[in-house]
Amino acid sequence: MTVPVLDVATVPAYVASHPHLAALVDVETASVVEVGDGNLNLVFIVTDAAGRSLTLKQSLPYVRMVGESWPLSQDRILAENRGFVAAVELSPESIPTYYGLDEARRTIAMQDLSAWTVWRRSLNNGIISEGAASTIGRHIARVGFGTSAFGLDSAALKEAVSGAANPELCKITEDLVFTHPYLDHPDNAWDDALTPDVLALRVGGLVDEAAALKYTFMTRAEALIHGDLHTGSVFVPTSSNEEPAKVFDMEFAFYGPIAFDLGSLFGNILLAQARAAVLDRPVEFRNYLARQVDEAWSAFDAEIRLLWPSRVDPSFTDAFLEQWLRQTFTDAIGFGGLKAIRRIVGLAKASDIQTLEESQRVVAARAVLTTARSWIEGRRDVASPAALATLTAEGLA
Amino acid sequence: MTVPVLDVATVPAYVASHPHLAALVDVETASVVEVGDGNLNLVFIVTDAAGRSLTLKQSLPYVRMVGESWPLSQDRILAENRGFVAAVELSPESIPTYYGLDEARRTIAMQDLSAWTVWRRSLNNGIISEGAASTIGRHIARVGFGTSAFGLDSAALKEAVSGAANPELCKITEDLVFTHPYLDHPDNAWDDALTPDVLALRVGGLVDEAAALKYTFMTRAEALIHGDLHTGSVFVPTSSNEEPAKVFDMEFAFYGPIAFDLGSLFGNILLAQARAAVLDRPVEFRNYLARQVDEAWSAFDAEIRLLWPSRVDPSFTDAFLEQWLRQTFTDAIGFGGLKAIRRIVGLAKASDIQTLEESQRVVAARAVLTTARSWIEGRRDVASPAALATLTAEGLA
Repeated sequence: MTVPVLDVATVPAYVASHPHLAALVDVETASVVEVGDGNLNLVFIVTDAAGRSLTLKQSLPYVRMVGESWPLSQDRILAENRGFVAAVELSPESIPTYYGLDEARRTIAMQDLSAWTVWRRSLNNGIISEGAASTIGRHIARVGFGTSAFGLDSAALKEAVSGAANPELCKITEDLVFTHPYLDHPDNAWDDALTPDVLALRVGGLVDEAAALKYTFMTRAEALIHGDLHTGSVFVPTSSNEEPAKVFDMEFAFYGPIAFDLGSLFGNILLAQARAAVLDRPVEFRNYLARQVDEAWSAFDAEIRLLWPSRVDPSFTDAFLEQWLRQTFTDAIGFGGLKAIRRIVGLAKASDIQTLEESQRVVAARAVLTTARSWIEGRRDVASPAALATLTAEGLA
Repeated sequence: MTVPVLDVATVPAYVASHPHLAALVDVETASVVEVGDGNLNLVFIVTDAAGRSLTLKQSLPYVRMVGESWPLSQDRILAENRGFVAAVELSPESIPTYYGLDEARRTIAMQDLSAWTVWRRSLNNGIISEGAASTIGRHIARVGFGTSAFGLDSAALKEAVSGAANPELCKITEDLVFTHPYLDHPDNAWDDALTPDVLALRVGGLVDEAAALKYTFMTRAEALIHGDLHTGSVFVPTSSNEEPAKVFDMEFAFYGPIAFDLGSLFGNILLAQARAAVLDRPVEFRNYLARQVDEAWSAFDAEIRLLWPSRVDPSFTDAFLEQWLRQTFTDAIGFGGLKAIRRIVGLAKASDIQTLEESQRVVAARAVLTTARSWIEGRRDVASPAALATLTAEGLA
C-alpha cells in the first residue's frame, strides 16, 4: 500500500482536517516548510502568524538518498509511532511532545523543535551541551526497562515483541552496520588513502566479531529500542531553560538489544572525538567529549538501579542485575565500534568526518577505524567507562 | 474462545466429517480410546477393523492435573501445529506423520504411534534404544537451523518470530523451571529427607544462574524450538525397522534458545542415570545412558556443520559458528541442570525418580540435585561432552 505524499501546498488542508492539530496552530495564517534532511521521510514545519508551530513527519515510499529505485514500505511510521507511544509513557521529557499517528496517511505529528539544534551539528561546531549524554542514557534506561521483562509481565512482553516487528528497517541496519563494511560491496566508499586500513578490517577476527554482534542484534528481543540513536537523532536546546536533550527519529524501533542504543551513542561520540582531535579543538571541548561515554553509561546504570526495585519479576536477582549490566556494557562497546566503522566505510557517512578537508579527514577516519577495532576486539576486557576512555585516548593519539 | 471437547462417542462422526481423515481409517468399524496421560490435552486413538489407525489430539481449556481451576487457552494447539509444520518441512522422519490442524476444533491429527514406547518408560525399564539420542540431536539441529537466522532470511525470520508467540505455555516454563524451585512456593513438594538439599538450592549463586538462564529463555528469539523436549516427548520403536525416535508433543513451541531443547534432553537423561544408579542396573545400560548426552550433542553438532554451507547469510563466518556452538553447549548444560531440578522439587514430577521406593528415591533425587547444581554452576568450564560426563559421574557416585 502506498499513500499519497504530502507537500507544502497540501499540508494546511491536512492540518485543518485534523481538529487536534488545527487546535495547535492557526491554519489561516500558517506557513509550511519542508525540512526533511534524512533519507526516508518528509518533515514539514507548520508555523502560524502567532509563532505557534508543529511538525508533521510522513514516511516516503522509497529511500530518498537513492531514489525510487529503493522502495521502502511506509509502514515504518507505525514503528516510529510505537517508539513514541512507549517513550510518552516512560520518558516523556526526553522526546518531542507527541501529537499522535494518522495511520491512514502514514503521518505523525509532534512538537516543532526547529529552534533546537541537532546534537551532531552542535558537536561539529565545537559547542558543549552539558547534560545531553546523561539525558540520553537515562532515556535508554527508562524505555529499555519499561518495555523489557523487567517492566512488563511475561504475557505483555510477548505481545509487545510480536507487535513490534520492523523487518525493512532492521534489514538496513543488518546490512549497513554489520555486513557491508566487512566485505566488497558497491555501497562502500572511502578516501583512497584509507584503502589499506579498510582492507585490514576484513582480515582477522573483526569479521567474526561483527557476525556475533549481528546475531545478537537479530535474536536478542530484549526491549523496544530506538534502533538508530546516533547524535543526529538528538536535539539539544539553544536556551538553557529546556531539557538537555530530546531524542527523535524512532522509525528504526524494534525489540532488540538495549546495548545497541548505548553503542550507537558511544560510536558517534567517537566520531566527534576524532573530528575534535584533528581540528585541534580547545582542550575543554575535547575533555567534554572524552567524558560523554561515561556520562551516558553512568546515567543509564544509575537509572536502571533506581528502577530495579520496581521490576515486575523479583526472580531477577540483584546479582543477576550486576551480570546483566556488565554484559550490556560489553555489548554496547562492540556495537559502538561497529557503528563508528560503518560511518567511515559504508553507505550514509557522518558529517563529523565527511565535512573535514581531505588530509584531516583521512587522519580522523584512520583514528576512528583503529579505535573502533580496539573497542570491538577488546570489549570483554574493558571493565569500566574509564578503561574505555583510556582505550579511546590511545586510539586517537 | 472455548470449543467443545471431543469424547470417544463423538470422535467417529468427527473423523467421518473430515475426508482426509476418513480416508485413513474405516469409520464404520473404528474403535476409539482416549489415552492422554499428559496434563493439557485429550488424545484419541482411532483404530479400524483392518488395523489402520490415527491419533487425534485436542487441547483442553484447562490443566488436567489441576482441573478447571487452572484455565488454559486451547490456542496452544496452534503452537503445536506451527511446530509440526516446521518439522514436516525440516525433519519429517523424526516426527509422527502429520495429518494437519482443524483450527475450528483446536484439534490436530497425526500418525498413531501407540505401538511405540515413550522413551522415558523404556528407560525406566532399563531398555537400551540405540540411536534415539542422536536422532533427537539431529532433529533439534535441523529444525533449529531451518527456522533460525541461518535458514531464514531476515524478513522471514521476523515474520516467523511475530507469528509464534506462545505466552501461556512459556509462562508455565518460566514459572515451573526457572522460578518456583528456587523459592517457597505451594506447588513445590519433595520427600522430607530432601529438605536440607532443597533449601540449599536457594542459597548462593544458583538462584542468580537460574535468573540469568530465565532471561535468556525469555529474550533469545533464535529458532522455533520444541520447548518441552524431555524423554517423555519422544517415542522409541519396539521393532528395529523403524526410525530410532520420533519427537512429539510440540505445544510448547515458540521462538526461543536452541540450547533449551538440548538441555531438556540432557537434564532428563540425568534423571534416567540417577534411577539406573540406585537400581544398580547392568553396567551395559548405565554406560549406554552415560553416552547419551555425547551422542545427542555430537549428532547436533555434526548436523549443524553439515547444514552450515547452506546458510542464507554467509556473513555468519566459520569462526562465529565455533563460538555459537560453544555458547549453545554451555547454555544447554545450564538449562539441563534446571530441567532436572524442577522434576525433583517443583510441580510435575518425573516417573524416573517418582516411581522408586522412598529410600532409593531420596538417594536418586539427592544425586540429581548435586549433579544438576554442578552442571549449572560449572557449565562455563565444561569444554566437551566428555568433561560433562565426568562431572555427572562424580555427582552420581
